[in-house]
Formats: sequence, C-alpha cells, structure tokens
Amino acid sequence: MKYLSLLCLIFQTSLFGMNIDGFAIRYNGGELSILNQQKLPSEAEWIDVQTPEQMVEIISTLKVRGAPMIGVSAVLSLAQMAERGLSFDEIEKAAYLLRKARPTAVNLAICVDRVLDAMRNGGDYRAAILATAENIYREDTDLCASIGEAGNALIQPGERILTYCNTGSLATAGIGTALGVIKAAHAQGKQIHVYACETRPLLQGGRLTAWELEECGIPFTLICDNMAATLMQQGKIDRVLVGADRIAANGDFANKIGTYSVAVLAHFHGVPFHVAAPYTTIDPNCPSGDQIRIEERSPDEVRGYGKICWSPKDAPVYNPAFDVTPSSLVTSYILNVGNLSLEEFLQEAR
Amino acid sequence: MKYLSLLCLIFQTSLFGMNIDGFAIRYNGGELSILNQQKLPSEAEWIDVQTPEQMVEIISTLKVRGAPMIGVSAVLSLAQMAERGLSFDEIEKAAYLLRKARPTAVNLAICVDRVLDAMRNGGDYRAAILATAENIYREDTDLCASIGEAGNALIQPGERILTYCNTGSLATAGIGTALGVIKAAHAQGKQIHVYACETRPLLQGGRLTAWELEECGIPFTLICDNMAATLMQQGKIDRVLVGADRIAANGDFANKIGTYSVAVLAHFHGVPFHVAAPYTTIDPNCPSGDQIRIEERSPDEVRGYGKICWSPKDAPVYNPAFDVTPSSLVTSYILNVGNLSLEEFLQEAR
Repeated sequence: MKYLSLLCLIFQTSLFGMNIDGFAIRYNGGELSILNQQKLPSEAEWIDVQTPEQMVEIISTLKVRGAPMIGVSAVLSLAQMAERGLSFDEIEKAAYLLRKARPTAVNLAICVDRVLDAMRNGGDYRAAILATAENIYREDTDLCASIGEAGNALIQPGERILTYCNTGSLATAGIGTALGVIKAAHAQGKQIHVYACETRPLLQGGRLTAWELEECGIPFTLICDNMAATLMQQGKIDRVLVGADRIAANGDFANKIGTYSVAVLAHFHGVPFHVAAPYTTIDPNCPSGDQIRIEERSPDEVRGYGKICWSPKDAPVYNPAFDVTPSSLVTSYILNVGNLSLEEFLQEAR
Repeated sequence: MKYLSLLCLIFQTSLFGMNIDGFAIRYNGGELSILNQQKLPSEAEWIDVQTPEQMVEIISTLKVRGAPMIGVSAVLSLAQMAERGLSFDEIEKAAYLLRKARPTAVNLAICVDRVLDAMRNGGDYRAAILATAENIYREDTDLCASIGEAGNALIQPGERILTYCNTGSLATAGIGTALGVIKAAHAQGKQIHVYACETRPLLQGGRLTAWELEECGIPFTLICDNMAATLMQQGKIDRVLVGADRIAANGDFANKIGTYSVAVLAHFHGVPFHVAAPYTTIDPNCPSGDQIRIEERSPDEVRGYGKICWSPKDAPVYNPAFDVTPSSLVTSYILNVGNLSLEEFLQEAR
C-alpha cells in the first residue's frame, strides 16, 4: 500500500503535473481552490484562487488558517503563478506580499523563503517552485503523521483530552497536529473523549474543531473557553493538547489567544499540557517568546461575531490574535521527531 | 439632601403607594415593568409585567438577571398581586413558583421567603407584602452604596481593574456590587481603567457591562474571556472585582461561569481577587461550595448566540451557568459591612 501511494505520487507529479486533492486545499494543473473556513460548518464553499493578492486576502481574513496550512496555501499560490508562466520578478514580488499576510506564524515565512531559495538556485525556476511547493505539501502531511504517532504514545485508554482552537486537517495538509494526535489515538480505539474550547473571538473550536471531530466520529463536548477551569476543578480533564504558531528557541511558544490561559489552568490543576507541532513551527532565530510579534486584529471581532454586533458599537477593545506560553508551563513538546522534554527540545532546536 | 430623600421616600410610600423608578425596574400603583436585558444594548425595551408566571419566564430567560435583581423582581411581582387584590393562596402559590425560577442565586429564595414570612405574620397580608417588597428594594439600594464605599477604600488612583459578567445597576436595585465599587472609585476621580470580560455564553459583560460603563463615562476595554490571562501576564491588571450569586458559610462562592477561571489566573499572577456582595447573598445554610446547586442551561447558548448557531447544530455541549470559587482564592470579601478577610467573613457568616 505504501509503495502504491509512492508510485501514485511519482505518477501524479511527473506525468500529469502537481495534483493535490486535500481536505481543505486542492491544486490541479494551475487550478487552485481553498475551502472557505469562515463559512464552515454551515456551508462548504470552495474559493477559486486566481491571484496571489487574492490569496493574501484569503489568509489575512482567515478563510484559510492554521500555521502549517497558511504556509502551504502561500506556496501553492506561487506554484500557480509558475505554472501559468508568470515572470521571475512577478513571482518574487508576490512572494514578499504573501510572506507578510500574517505576522505571527513562522511557517508562512519559512515556506515562502524555501520557494524563494529554490527559484534563485539557478536552472528552471518554474520547475523549482512547483517541486518545492509540492514537497512542502507532502512533507507537511508526513509531519502530521509523525506527530500523531509521537503523541499517541502518551495517550492512555479512556483519556479525556482538552484541546484549543483548530489544529486538524483544516489547519495542516495532513491529519493535524494536536488534533492529529487525538485522531491517531481514536483510530487505535482508545475510547478518548475530547473537550473542545470554542476559541473566541473567531470560534475556530466551536465551528471547525467541533465539525472536524463530528466528521471523524470522535466523541466530544463543546465548551466556552471560560469553562475549561471548571472541568479541571472537577477532575474531568486528563491532558491538554494544543498547537503552535511559532516556537521560540527557548521553548516559549505563540498560539491562538487563550492558549496561555489554558496552560496556567492546567499547571494549577496538575494536568499535563502538551504542545504539538512540526519542526517547521520552530523559529531558531527567535530567542524567546517576548520576541514574537503578536498580531492585533479588528475590534469588531470582539464586539460581536461576523456581521452581528452585540456590544456597544464603539466599545474600546483589546484583540490580540495570539498569546505566548512560557516553556515553564509545557509538560512536553510533541514534535515530528518525537515527544520531547524541554531539555530535549532545546537540544533539537539548536 | 439626605433628609429630603427620606421625606420623599415616606411621602411616596404612605400617600401614593409604592413608587419605584429604578434603572432597570419600575413599579407604580400595581404597574410593573422590567428593562429587557436580553435586548440591551441595541434596544431598550421595557416589558409590561402582568402575572407571576410571566415574571418566572422573564427571570428564567435572563431578561432580568443578577442575584440581587432577580430577588427584587420576584417580590415586586408578588407586590403587584397584592395591590391587585389577589388572594392569600394565589400569592403564596405564585411565591413558590417564583422561588424556583432559577436555582443558584440565594437572594431569590431569601427575598421570596421574607415576603412569605411577612404575609403569614397576621394582620393585613397585602400591606405586609407591599411593605416588605419595598423594603427589600430600598435596602438593596443601600447595600450597594455600602459595598461601594467599603470597596472604594481599597482602590488606589490609576488602578486597572478587571471585572466579570455584569454586577451593576442592571443586576441590583442600586449602583451594583463589584461594578458599584468601580463606580464609587470613578466618582472620586481615581482615574481607574476597567477591563470587562465579555462573559460567554450570554455575554453579560460584552453587552451589559460595556453599555453600563459607557453610560457612566468610565474608561474601559472590552476583552474576550480568554484574554484575561494575557493582560495579567503583561502586568496590566492591578485587581479583580467580581460579584456572587451565593456565598457558602465557609466562604466558597458561586458566580457566573468563568469566575473560577479568573480566580485561578489572578492567584497565579499574584493579582488581588475580591468578591463584592450584600449580606443577602450569603447562605448560612450552605456549609461549602460543593453544596451549591449549579444550574445547567440550554446547549444552544454555547452552540451560538441568540438565534445564530455557528457550531454543528447537534454538537454535544456542557453549559453550566455558574462555577464555584473556593475561599482559598479570595483576597477579601467586600460586603456591605466592610472589606473582610476570610477569618472576618467566617465570623460574620456565623
């Protein structure tokens, strides 16, 4: 089966061009489409992507989100330009635009830089872009599988696992990071139960994780973010699994706003707290969490949801999209290379 | 001025019957109306209350809410029945209905019991009900003023205070409890800044507290509940002030879901955490927090907001309306009798 998949992969790539039929992204002969995550779960709308400017808009408005996934989406947009015969300069310019579509997740910048490096390496820059983009996609799928395997080794049968935001097939090219671990444990019949935090303000947990868990048939309970502490107080949470948007070299990490809150609560209640991420989320150039630039988003996101405003229209708002959890609150780092203590992580990140 | 107010009060009561022109409740000669808090801040709809069954619906659907306020609302409904000449038995039956409209706040049961006791004391039961209802209303106003004074003594100029849910003039007959302290400090020109947590799922913070702070001209910032930890991490919160729905004899207390989470976060960050409440919120018959019955509400409240559902329609949900904070996390109890340590509270609650 493994060899058949490999054969198919070679077949697809070399004879018919890049063909990606992912859970939330599709690419075929220069046609690129993205599942609009702002409309899920009520509607499964696929957006036909035509330009990198459109992709910047898609990324910055969170129609596609998740640290690994926005990196993949950006490079597939560059691949589309290459396949459609745009010039080196045009693609390079687009790469710079895409690179800064969102500031916090490091994967975006790293993935775009890999394409830039490849196209500058001499030879056929278009072929280089296509090959690199496809490699990034396939690699992310494999990284998720490895993370799932490493994390699954920790999970005991019957565990009740709290997770935050969405870190599954909508956030990555594969099964996910934290949610990938959950899927791997479920696939082994471990009878786990998931508590999904809704993740205000954009409700990636309430909308996307709840939907993805339902699709996978994994038993879950949806809660508001402020209910996690009560569940821990009642002894109903055995483990917390979250993803990351950027892990600094010292093990501090940025993730969706509210992650730090869950980390403190887990610490107080003695609940193990793990961050699951591929190596592409580690930023060796970032010495510590306080160096991570945190994106602030529109006040309207806090004043309501979507087009609804339930608070006073001009209410002053603080709306950071991410927060930083210090390494001291992390029980272990579930990476594609295995489940690492802080000491092991520091060696790995060097 | 004080004597003039007193004179007016006597005048209103003895010559023209009970006349209450409150911020969120009005009563005049048997006409009772309630500001619909489910429609605030977008609409200021006053509901004309005609029957106790209607008041039960108003309380259970949170059109009126706040521990002191639902007690006041229930007894004014009984006063209306008395003024309209309903029988002893009819009023007694209505009292039992109203008493169980919501289970967690003790004020409701205590206020209704006070009316029941008064009407059973012999003499004119209608006059007794009216007098007791009015006393409860006026007393709650005075209790708020005393709480405000006691709490204000703690507040230093320039403090940044985090508060939760709504504990102001919409939740009480007076200036409020925790929000009353904030108003008292603001009135003295202490240049405080308030961080208001939106308080999912029913958004009493985002809708009501934001609105009330704006009405009072008090500088504030609205945040999602999951952002409180980040603000504390940044050293931006000097103090947390919350209300209570029921304080057990050992100092544990029930309050809006999410309060316990804030208490743990404040403890972790070394931020003083105070609960502000009138003596009517103390339940001497409840030995500890684990004896407090916690109301669970409809899953639809977590699946979305109002008529909007953003999560999968049948997503399994946990939706406790309250949580319990242990006394060990409380810095002090701001009661109408003063600002008390746990030891002092335990003496007071005896």
